[in-house]
Amino acid sequence: MVVNNKVDSLSYDVEAPPPQGASAGSAAAAAPPPAPAHHHAHAPAAPVMREGTAVMELHKVSLPERRSTVKALRQRLAEVLFPDDPLHQFKNQSSARRLVLALQYFFPIFQWGSAYSPRLLRSDLIAGLTIASLAIPQPGGARRAITNTVHVLAVQGISYAKLANLPPIIGLYSSFVPPLIYSLLGSSRDLAVGPVSIASLVMGSMLREAVSPDDQPILYLQLAFTATFFAGVFQASLGFLRLGFIVDFLSKATLTGFMGGAAIIVSLQQLKGLLGIVHFTSHMGFIDVMRSVFKRHDEWEWQTIVMGTAFLAILLLTRQISARNPKLFWISAGAPLASVIISTILSFIWKSHSISVIGILPRGVNPPSANMLTFNGSYVALTIKTGIMTGILSLTEGIAVGRTFASINNYQVDGNKEMMAIGIMNMAGSCASCYVTTGSFSRSAVNYSAGCKTAVSNIVMAAAVLVTLLFLMPLFHYTPNVILSAIIITAVVGLIDVRGAAKLWKVDKLDFLACMAAFLGVLLVSVQMGLAIAVGISLFKILLQVTRPNMVVKGLVPGTQTYRSVVQYREAVRVPAFLVVGVESAIYFTNSMYLVERVMRYLRDEEEMALKSNQSSIRCVVLDMSAVAAIDTSGLDALSELKKILDKRNIELVLANPVGSVAERMFNSAVGETFGSDRLFFSVAEAVAAGACKAQP
Amino acid sequence: MVVNNKVDSLSYDVEAPPPQGASAGSAAAAAPPPAPAHHHAHAPAAPVMREGTAVMELHKVSLPERRSTVKALRQRLAEVLFPDDPLHQFKNQSSARRLVLALQYFFPIFQWGSAYSPRLLRSDLIAGLTIASLAIPQPGGARRAITNTVHVLAVQGISYAKLANLPPIIGLYSSFVPPLIYSLLGSSRDLAVGPVSIASLVMGSMLREAVSPDDQPILYLQLAFTATFFAGVFQASLGFLRLGFIVDFLSKATLTGFMGGAAIIVSLQQLKGLLGIVHFTSHMGFIDVMRSVFKRHDEWEWQTIVMGTAFLAILLLTRQISARNPKLFWISAGAPLASVIISTILSFIWKSHSISVIGILPRGVNPPSANMLTFNGSYVALTIKTGIMTGILSLTEGIAVGRTFASINNYQVDGNKEMMAIGIMNMAGSCASCYVTTGSFSRSAVNYSAGCKTAVSNIVMAAAVLVTLLFLMPLFHYTPNVILSAIIITAVVGLIDVRGAAKLWKVDKLDFLACMAAFLGVLLVSVQMGLAIAVGISLFKILLQVTRPNMVVKGLVPGTQTYRSVVQYREAVRVPAFLVVGVESAIYFTNSMYLVERVMRYLRDEEEMALKSNQSSIRCVVLDMSAVAAIDTSGLDALSELKKILDKRNIELVLANPVGSVAERMFNSAVGETFGSDRLFFSVAEAVAAGACKAQP
Repeated sequence: MVVNNKVDSLSYDVEAPPPQGASAGSAAAAAPPPAPAHHHAHAPAAPVMREGTAVMELHKVSLPERRSTVKALRQRLAEVLFPDDPLHQFKNQSSARRLVLALQYFFPIFQWGSAYSPRLLRSDLIAGLTIASLAIPQPGGARRAITNTVHVLAVQGISYAKLANLPPIIGLYSSFVPPLIYSLLGSSRDLAVGPVSIASLVMGSMLREAVSPDDQPILYLQLAFTATFFAGVFQASLGFLRLGFIVDFLSKATLTGFMGGAAIIVSLQQLKGLLGIVHFTSHMGFIDVMRSVFKRHDEWEWQTIVMGTAFLAILLLTRQISARNPKLFWISAGAPLASVIISTILSFIWKSHSISVIGILPRGVNPPSANMLTFNGSYVALTIKTGIMTGILSLTEGIAVGRTFASINNYQVDGNKEMMAIGIMNMAGSCASCYVTTGSFSRSAVNYSAGCKTAVSNIVMAAAVLVTLLFLMPLFHYTPNVILSAIIITAVVGLIDVRGAAKLWKVDKLDFLACMAAFLGVLLVSVQMGLAIAVGISLFKILLQVTRPNMVVKGLVPGTQTYRSVVQYREAVRVPAFLVVGVESAIYFTNSMYLVERVMRYLRDEEEMALKSNQSSIRCVVLDMSAVAAIDTSGLDALSELKKILDKRNIELVLANPVGSVAERMFNSAVGETFGSDRLFFSVAEAVAAGACKAQP
Repeated sequence: MVVNNKVDSLSYDVEAPPPQGASAGSAAAAAPPPAPAHHHAHAPAAPVMREGTAVMELHKVSLPERRSTVKALRQRLAEVLFPDDPLHQFKNQSSARRLVLALQYFFPIFQWGSAYSPRLLRSDLIAGLTIASLAIPQPGGARRAITNTVHVLAVQGISYAKLANLPPIIGLYSSFVPPLIYSLLGSSRDLAVGPVSIASLVMGSMLREAVSPDDQPILYLQLAFTATFFAGVFQASLGFLRLGFIVDFLSKATLTGFMGGAAIIVSLQQLKGLLGIVHFTSHMGFIDVMRSVFKRHDEWEWQTIVMGTAFLAILLLTRQISARNPKLFWISAGAPLASVIISTILSFIWKSHSISVIGILPRGVNPPSANMLTFNGSYVALTIKTGIMTGILSLTEGIAVGRTFASINNYQVDGNKEMMAIGIMNMAGSCASCYVTTGSFSRSAVNYSAGCKTAVSNIVMAAAVLVTLLFLMPLFHYTPNVILSAIIITAVVGLIDVRGAAKLWKVDKLDFLACMAAFLGVLLVSVQMGLAIAVGISLFKILLQVTRPNMVVKGLVPGTQTYRSVVQYREAVRVPAFLVVGVESAIYFTNSMYLVERVMRYLRDEEEMALKSNQSSIRCVVLDMSAVAAIDTSGLDALSELKKILDKRNIELVLANPVGSVAERMFNSAVGETFGSDRLFFSVAEAVAAGACKAQP
């Protein structure tokens, strides 16, 4: 039945099942496509071409369904702005149900709240108290995450506030209100909210360049709250305008370098506390700080230095122990709280005046701070800039953390909705004495491994902070500042990801370059410049790839009808008289000229090779468009031009397998007519077969 | 022989020719690949898989040859910086021959000079004199190009100099020295060199904002020469550093909008001359100019207005006539010179003092101007900026024109070498009283259609200008300025390409947006801002395409073993229990998250569909990587994450046809191990076949 007619041996017999050649037969056997008899209803096959014994049925290149401009634009916009199709669940629902769904959409608490049970509460309670204290080591699961988590919540809040040059109490306030708000609005079950190191650092660095937190503490605090407000506005509008993809422009490589640099900057800032220096530089750069450290060596305090280095050594040691032996992870998890307790007791007994302590912290919950927001005056530009920078950085961390845990637990987090939740949280926070907060990786890791089930764990955590605020504040009186510096250094040292950088070097040199640019930029120039340079390099890398796209000569892989790169598949053989070139990028104005020149270069090389080996010269160039995802007007012009040039040399140019949008554009412009349906082929194999027919008249 | 064994019916018999199924057989028949018996030498086929009657031989995914880091980097750099392989001709040559080739490489005149003949000289002589006079209409060939060319050389030089607010004589000087230098260094045979409208306009606009050409003519001239020098330095260094691809970032859409806006700006500036206004605004913006025109209506000069509008009407009319009837192209080609002659005679007879005339032009060749270059003082930043802007714009025009004519005449122009030639020409020009020059489209079109053969036509043109400079200068004394304004307007009106913009709208809405942004930006804000906005939009468009790549669900096209988009090929059928997704972009940090989410969304939709139609649910996701040209570390992580998520749902994730660089990266990172060789397939068809085998235990 299959191979009995010599003339028809290569054409498909549409009444019978497809011929059992190559792998399609197997695929079809595994899953027979329905109704093979009518498969050409939409795109009737071209007339069968006959040439001696070589006969093949040619398939037409199809166009996608014709859409109006408005519809095409709407679909494109929907894909850019609503890639997650958030309204999907509203389809085919009654209006009452839609209302409920809408309520649940905007306040996820209604979604999980109705199914909330004592059993879930128990899990959340444990998790919430765990993040709040971090004193209860949890065995099993996500140990590495905990190992990285060396922050005690209270200590963490206070330390990060110091990183932002803010009074320590602000750090505690920021661990109370934002988690409450997030538990109402947030869609992640695992995200634990609080201040984070990077955003604190950037805020501190940017505001401090303009206002000294020591000389004008009130103004500084005002600016910090205002910047937090702007950060919230920026975050919420990004989410509202569905522009969440902007955070995707911060690549992992960039962040690796940025965090490494920031960690060193942060550690250097701690030299102030570790050495007991009173008059410290307000700049963040490596050189400024080192100069300041050595210029002020008369202020170095030996008692502080001894205590600081001792505890720093202990903390780093516990970190090492836990890293070596994951079973002992609780050592590094408990060490910071233990250090705080021991050092506070020591300092209480010692009562040395040369060791600076946190001092009196006001008891009571967050005072309102809406009246401290300042929208006029000369600092508006600064606060907006700081707000945008800290806003985007904290969003990046929050979204990444939320997505990570969502993917572990197999649920979806709506990035844009998360942005709105985080934004509203920060706007509200700025009116309640909080500075920028977001989903923190370290807290969330603990939260997750302690077995949290819903956002209630955030409420529990807030309640624990409330207790601290109301009753435990005096305990911090004698906590030495130097111990906070030691804890911060231990914490941020974990952000220096040398192994990650090494992996970048191994896998992608340009990513490594972006990483190093961010690292050195942050370290030597400024936090903002470092980030800007790294983002610039990352984007330039993309543009470069589009400007100089991969182009490969393809050959037939023996035993198949597939054409593959002859460099990758060394067994692939060039078909004599044909040059098959695959373009592996969209064809845009940035590469259209290169495309033409590259094809001409391949042609020259192939012709030289053919001349040497006495083979027939190239008569047909097949451009494999399978990987050309898009084409613009310059690209279309380039194709026409290439055709013109090749026509002059009596070489045919045919295109194989243009994808939908490209085929559409070609037919919308004059290029479609230039090539016509007899120069557009379904696949390279068919193009070669048809081209061969024509070239042998 | 082929289909006699039921068990082996789907596997290739390697000793026999490939089975004659589908089109590969036909391709093979047209061009039998050599040595089919040993085609698995490099990538041995995996063991044949047997499953009932479905048996297929699987092909391994190959990696390209292993390269060292240095070699990979070198190849990549070579592709970015030397895409044209300029050293190709030096291969396998003796050292003496190499010296000759090097000399020819740097001074193309040695290449064509040795073969130069009287016959070629005759062609060049005619062409050179034609550009110099434009008075001899040439019948036939490239008529449209000539139709667009309404400039008389002398008039063009003078007019463009006025556009740059420079004394008219500078325009003539700039038509003398640069062509001579280009004829020595340039590699294009057709390029005719001289001042061009856009670069003149931008230089005039940028310098005029800082220095008034009327109040401080000497300073203005110094700045113009210095900017020209910097433009030359910038151009030559771009060429020397092989960074020529930067000019590719100006897309055709951008240039269409930019030129349209610039043409209107230029025309508006001519209102000064047309209305005879003496005190005109120094700004270029639409609003400023219109305000100035109406505020100064007391300065309007009726004699000037009458003369100007009359000649303008005649010039536009001749343009129309030639456009309607290409045979009458000589009317519009000759009209400007005729207008100049007639108006000069009229003005000489009339001797009205109210019509401003060019006046006395100094006789003699270019005076040296090296002493006028100023590198210190407060204007350095301005001249550098102006130099870079005019440099890149004139490069864009020069390279585009050179490439266009090279492709018509089927020779290659080395873009980077051209840049060096143009750069050196401008550096030298700035020392010989010339301002920015480049290859001019209008001149080159005339040059080409007049039959030029080599760069000698540039020498002839320079000689003609020399004669003008030495003997014909007094003739321009009574030429009214208003006539130059009319000629400029007629010339630049041709740059407003409404049809081109309409085509952009039809083919690519985002290109149209970039075009309009450039147009409105130039018109309403400033020339630089318009250009910056348009370039920004063009680049953002590329980034957007990479951020939200096309992703398509693929189905089996009946009668083939090929999987294609089910949206494009409506006859393609989904294989039950399989989800085949094609990614049509490189996978980068900007789209790695989107990729995961989009696949999950497809999965949800497919599962809903399967549920409705009672089909089996998805058991295997095949990611078709054919169109993924590159992947970075974030992309690799995303693949691992997607695998983890799908593993939790008991869905297999397999990859089909990763291209060389992607496969390489996967094996360099841990991702290669995650997927292993049993989850990487040669093609979608094989992946489906193998996946089916596994899923039916």
